[in-house]
Amino acid sequence: MSSRATAVAPANIAFIKYWGAHDVERGVPMNPSVSMTLSRCVSICTVEAHPREDGRSGVAPHGEDCDGVGDEILLAGPDGNRPAPEFFACRIRDHLDRLRKLFDAAVTFRVATKNSFPAGAGLASSASGFAALTLAAVRALGLDLATDELSVLARRSGSGSAARSVLGGFVELPGGPDEGDVYARPLAGAADWDLRDVIAVVASEPKSVSSREGHRRVVSSPYYRERLALLPGRLATVRDAIERRDFHLLGPVVEEEGIDLHLVAMSAIPPIFYWLPGTLQVLETVRMLRLEGIEAYSTMDAGPNVHVICRPSEEASVVDRLGQLESVREVICDGVGPGPRFSEDHLL
Amino acid sequence: MSSRATAVAPANIAFIKYWGAHDVERGVPMNPSVSMTLSRCVSICTVEAHPREDGRSGVAPHGEDCDGVGDEILLAGPDGNRPAPEFFACRIRDHLDRLRKLFDAAVTFRVATKNSFPAGAGLASSASGFAALTLAAVRALGLDLATDELSVLARRSGSGSAARSVLGGFVELPGGPDEGDVYARPLAGAADWDLRDVIAVVASEPKSVSSREGHRRVVSSPYYRERLALLPGRLATVRDAIERRDFHLLGPVVEEEGIDLHLVAMSAIPPIFYWLPGTLQVLETVRMLRLEGIEAYSTMDAGPNVHVICRPSEEASVVDRLGQLESVREVICDGVGPGPRFSEDHLL
Repeated sequence: MSSRATAVAPANIAFIKYWGAHDVERGVPMNPSVSMTLSRCVSICTVEAHPREDGRSGVAPHGEDCDGVGDEILLAGPDGNRPAPEFFACRIRDHLDRLRKLFDAAVTFRVATKNSFPAGAGLASSASGFAALTLAAVRALGLDLATDELSVLARRSGSGSAARSVLGGFVELPGGPDEGDVYARPLAGAADWDLRDVIAVVASEPKSVSSREGHRRVVSSPYYRERLALLPGRLATVRDAIERRDFHLLGPVVEEEGIDLHLVAMSAIPPIFYWLPGTLQVLETVRMLRLEGIEAYSTMDAGPNVHVICRPSEEASVVDRLGQLESVREVICDGVGPGPRFSEDHLL
Repeated sequence: MSSRATAVAPANIAFIKYWGAHDVERGVPMNPSVSMTLSRCVSICTVEAHPREDGRSGVAPHGEDCDGVGDEILLAGPDGNRPAPEFFACRIRDHLDRLRKLFDAAVTFRVATKNSFPAGAGLASSASGFAALTLAAVRALGLDLATDELSVLARRSGSGSAARSVLGGFVELPGGPDEGDVYARPLAGAADWDLRDVIAVVASEPKSVSSREGHRRVVSSPYYRERLALLPGRLATVRDAIERRDFHLLGPVVEEEGIDLHLVAMSAIPPIFYWLPGTLQVLETVRMLRLEGIEAYSTMDAGPNVHVICRPSEEASVVDRLGQLESVREVICDGVGPGPRFSEDHLL
């Protein structure tokens, strides 16, 4: 008998960035990371599990061509579902294969997925996408796993940040190399601290270098080792700021980390450039806002868009100012969210 | 009896950047640098030395208020000479005081100066300006000094790069801390290698943080020490490339250095941001040109404008493409120059 489940999983914005991996394929980060789970930026994923007639479980081992199992991967859109592009479907099949083998499940999957925000532009679409896929697939298989286990499984998709999207509020993910330890822990709940993330979208096209390729390449930066040495101090500050709800303590570290990710990218061999002209315009505007007494701090993931973190009292001013910039295509207002949920609004 | 001299000194574009100082006031760099002396981007400076009636030499010691000696500092413009802004005049009087004391000269100076290019926007106007000032003042004092000595004097203005502008062609300036050793050496003459510098001007306003302040601040970057460790390798490559006229060897290091200057600036405490949206547009265009087979490499000094280094055969293509960018206000075509000269076209 087939079964079906739909999960809604949020994106997250990192205050301390996972950047560089012990093992990219298994999503084992070189360093600990801390993020805020978002509320409105979500991926929705429906998974159907159909029993295989031949009773065999997964065939394509991870890393080989993923053409064996006949899983159907669809993108849900306003005009209905259509087949996903092959590079995208391939990563999803890889992950489904992994789950199938792990749970020895003799099934084929049908998957339909969509995002509430532009994909592939540094808005953590793979984090929310793989978290939603993992949660929906596990439930479609009839399994009930602990959050720790779900976090590990989401990470194993290769999107390490997906491990953080299984929890709401403020979340920490340890670094490797000890893989068993790398699952998300809650630092504070969504209701504990009302922060806002005003996202200035300056490009909605997929970025030129994927985060996965970034994780592989940035360890070649001559500055990478020094970055790792800086992180324990920053991590302690961010934990402390979250515990004390001290925005003035949090903000400067968040902004420093957002820049730092790009500094090691631009000094990698070969270098990676994610910033666009509009990125710099937003960064400059945020510095100007602070000079005017509007406390807001920018951060970026591996892409050109800028997340501006502020308190609720400053949100309207930030939105207003960013919306006036000619290079900003769209302003998305988001905030701390409670984490993933299941839904009965199925996409299949 | 008064005497007068006019010097024309070129700007230079560094392949290996002087960035961070042992002693900013005395222009003692933390690291060696290599530059190409330009041809068209020049400062012109006329200095008149008038005997003082009281016979006293300089009064205002370096670093104190420079109001004692009555030197007159003018900016030459199309509508004649007008008094220079105070912050600018003050740096010039400081330098004149230094020369007056050093040579025990009982004179007051009248100075008129101008640039052939926008000042204060990362086009090394202080390098050419202080080189021209030094050369003109020394000659107005009736002195005939060796190039080594002129290089040291130009550096002592506080603009360390001015030490390189007293020579033509390709020039190396050692780093400190041994100050006596810090004068420019020729690596190759202007006639030895015909390279071009196509300058994309994206802003002609003075930059927000001066190079001097930059030199003070960048040593606070957590990445600064690692940058210093990288430089001997880059320096050896650049020397080798100049000796062998190997553009393919030179270019990537030049581009890396141009980025690197800004990476340590953006990670300084507090950070310094010189890039503008137009800067990124030019950097991206240069990478695109290379993909199309047009070999050109970007570099930047402490400012938003981009110098694009290429061979004569590629110059027209580079100029054409950069000129099409909406963020580029002006394209200046320059190349290797023979160094400073004296002129009889006096500004006073």
